[in-house]
Amino acid sequence: MINPEQELRLSVRAQLMPASPIRRLVPYAEQAKARGIKVYHLNIGQPDIETPVQIINGYRQIDIKVLEYGHSAGLKSYIRTLVDYYHRAGIAVEEGNILVTTGGSEAIAFALQAVCDPGDEVLVPEPFYTNYLGFAIMAGVKIVPITTFRTSGFALPGKDEIVRLITPRTRAILFSNPGNPTGAVYTEPEMMLLKELALEYNLFLIGDEVYREFVYEEVKPVSVLSLQGVEDRTVMVDSISKRYSACGARIGCVVSRNRDFMTAMLKFGQARLCPPTIDQLAAQEAAKIPPAYFEQVRNEYRRRRDVLCAELAKIPGVEFTTPRGAFYLIAGLPVDDAERFAIFMLERFHVNNETVMVAPGNGFYATPGLGRNEVRIAYVLECEALVRAVAILKAGLAAYQQGG
Amino acid sequence: MINPEQELRLSVRAQLMPASPIRRLVPYAEQAKARGIKVYHLNIGQPDIETPVQIINGYRQIDIKVLEYGHSAGLKSYIRTLVDYYHRAGIAVEEGNILVTTGGSEAIAFALQAVCDPGDEVLVPEPFYTNYLGFAIMAGVKIVPITTFRTSGFALPGKDEIVRLITPRTRAILFSNPGNPTGAVYTEPEMMLLKELALEYNLFLIGDEVYREFVYEEVKPVSVLSLQGVEDRTVMVDSISKRYSACGARIGCVVSRNRDFMTAMLKFGQARLCPPTIDQLAAQEAAKIPPAYFEQVRNEYRRRRDVLCAELAKIPGVEFTTPRGAFYLIAGLPVDDAERFAIFMLERFHVNNETVMVAPGNGFYATPGLGRNEVRIAYVLECEALVRAVAILKAGLAAYQQGG
Repeated sequence: MINPEQELRLSVRAQLMPASPIRRLVPYAEQAKARGIKVYHLNIGQPDIETPVQIINGYRQIDIKVLEYGHSAGLKSYIRTLVDYYHRAGIAVEEGNILVTTGGSEAIAFALQAVCDPGDEVLVPEPFYTNYLGFAIMAGVKIVPITTFRTSGFALPGKDEIVRLITPRTRAILFSNPGNPTGAVYTEPEMMLLKELALEYNLFLIGDEVYREFVYEEVKPVSVLSLQGVEDRTVMVDSISKRYSACGARIGCVVSRNRDFMTAMLKFGQARLCPPTIDQLAAQEAAKIPPAYFEQVRNEYRRRRDVLCAELAKIPGVEFTTPRGAFYLIAGLPVDDAERFAIFMLERFHVNNETVMVAPGNGFYATPGLGRNEVRIAYVLECEALVRAVAILKAGLAAYQQGG
Repeated sequence: MINPEQELRLSVRAQLMPASPIRRLVPYAEQAKARGIKVYHLNIGQPDIETPVQIINGYRQIDIKVLEYGHSAGLKSYIRTLVDYYHRAGIAVEEGNILVTTGGSEAIAFALQAVCDPGDEVLVPEPFYTNYLGFAIMAGVKIVPITTFRTSGFALPGKDEIVRLITPRTRAILFSNPGNPTGAVYTEPEMMLLKELALEYNLFLIGDEVYREFVYEEVKPVSVLSLQGVEDRTVMVDSISKRYSACGARIGCVVSRNRDFMTAMLKFGQARLCPPTIDQLAAQEAAKIPPAYFEQVRNEYRRRRDVLCAELAKIPGVEFTTPRGAFYLIAGLPVDDAERFAIFMLERFHVNNETVMVAPGNGFYATPGLGRNEVRIAYVLECEALVRAVAILKAGLAAYQQGG
């Protein structure tokens, strides 16, 4: 007897869930590697910078008998180091404003769920970090894109353009700053615009600031938590993944001065018990890293950015604006379909058994059709490797244009 | 100008989200400790058994330069050890059937989201692991309880009783086996009943089997993945937290032979990038733990269970059935409101500066009113400490009954 009223099927959200544009081509890369091809990974923001030895030693030096659950909000000793870190960054927060999460990913998921119910809407400047869409779908939330353009450095549009996207179901504006995948760093007037919108339309501002240290011009990114008069509606998402080249630690946090919001964070946090214990103990060793570390890393990424831009500029038909922060660049390619081209590079192209993997741009947009000729390039390789990778890209483009 | 159509507020799900019954009394415990009181934690399933040195050494011996993201499905080397582990446990699965998760928690969250959309329903035998409710609320899913009773050892009711709970929105049956908080181990006929229901009503069976090794009678728990003919609708949730006393590692997994389901798992997994890398490397060292380890641990917990039951039996008015698995026991107490009593124990009672923390039973039921005079006791302390803790509980009950 089969129940006439239903069939065995997965949820609609499972079906809608996009495969990561950063990772969905991984099987092609694996096949290329199996054929002996070396793949330059420009697709994923996995820095090659060494994780500071202080953090590695944090793992090596653990001295415990029982690997226990920690507090759902995170280990107090680690949170204290975060308070210090934020104070040094000019962001005055207290221990109670912070909940440690399993990566910035969990911080985004928790924040979305705390301010949105299924059917609610969140404004997100596009192109955006693609996993925002994944978490939105999992939460039943609709992402409404605020389209920004390569040609204007992915600056926010004027107020009117944003206002007309607001509906009674709009609950928040979610954005990364410095921007992934755009490399944009919002100016003071742009941040003031976001504040104005949050005040006038009772929206939460969720700022993903995991690239805070990666800014290459004479601008300091304005933290969403530095905005005055909107303390009840600002939320910051953060992570040590990029800051300390420690992506695999999965240690992030969510920070807000809104007490009710933080109470919700704690309840969500209790459901999953705690973030990983040893990784927090290792992360708290970051307090011992000298400030010069960021200067060195920033200089290294600036060099890479400059090399990448110089090399890309040599390829006919490739278009981009120089990113000011993070370590990504959106490039328009002289192809119809950048995803097809990315697969071509992995499946059919190589130079001396080397090829390049890029992330197709379409996955970073919610508006259908946008980003189709774009790719995101992460400059997370050494300059020499970047030069080589761009040369391969150039050769690949030429081969592709001649019909592969 | 205030948008007339909406106010600044948190989501309904954030407001509905329950505080963990296991953890919500933590502030009372912290205050007690601040007053110099030693608290015996019977509230939380945090074993005091030492984490095997093989796993601890897994952390100590890491030898990497860059703490990278791993594969979204988990590290291949770790998954291989899981395949071996399951084969030894009589569960034949392949690498592609497994996705490593950040704790069993994430496995539950992912499984619920993959089979349910907002408004869908999941049957769960109650009392149940309280965080099922949290994850259901976060996912917009309704938990429909199948009530089971202490007096019948929390056995499943007959088929008719379950069938009348099924609606067109019922998508799955979620259960833990061995049971948290009940200590019940489902019999072969009970598992066959679940299989029958899954077949007839096209439901997924999600079996949370994190206590597989903790069974104290001559029964072997039947894995949901061992059921024949329902391979397309069975999902297993697992974790190393209890198995290896490694709760803080946050390493679990979700296992299914349904390919579409596993594709959805991977897409969810890609959204959060990867489970923690070093913790997986440490967890894979568990392959080196000799099989005798489980025998020792099982014997220890069996002793504790027997001591706990013997001591509890001495308290007038305390009622329970001897649990057959896991390391929890639901006890009915001679009080009106076990939560009030639990707070009393932390706030106002002590014997020679020692007191006891238990988890109020009401949080483990979805049906209002049930579990009100019950508590969950985790027997995760050494026998001597258990004897002492139950003596304090007994004295506390007497004091409470005399009006505190």
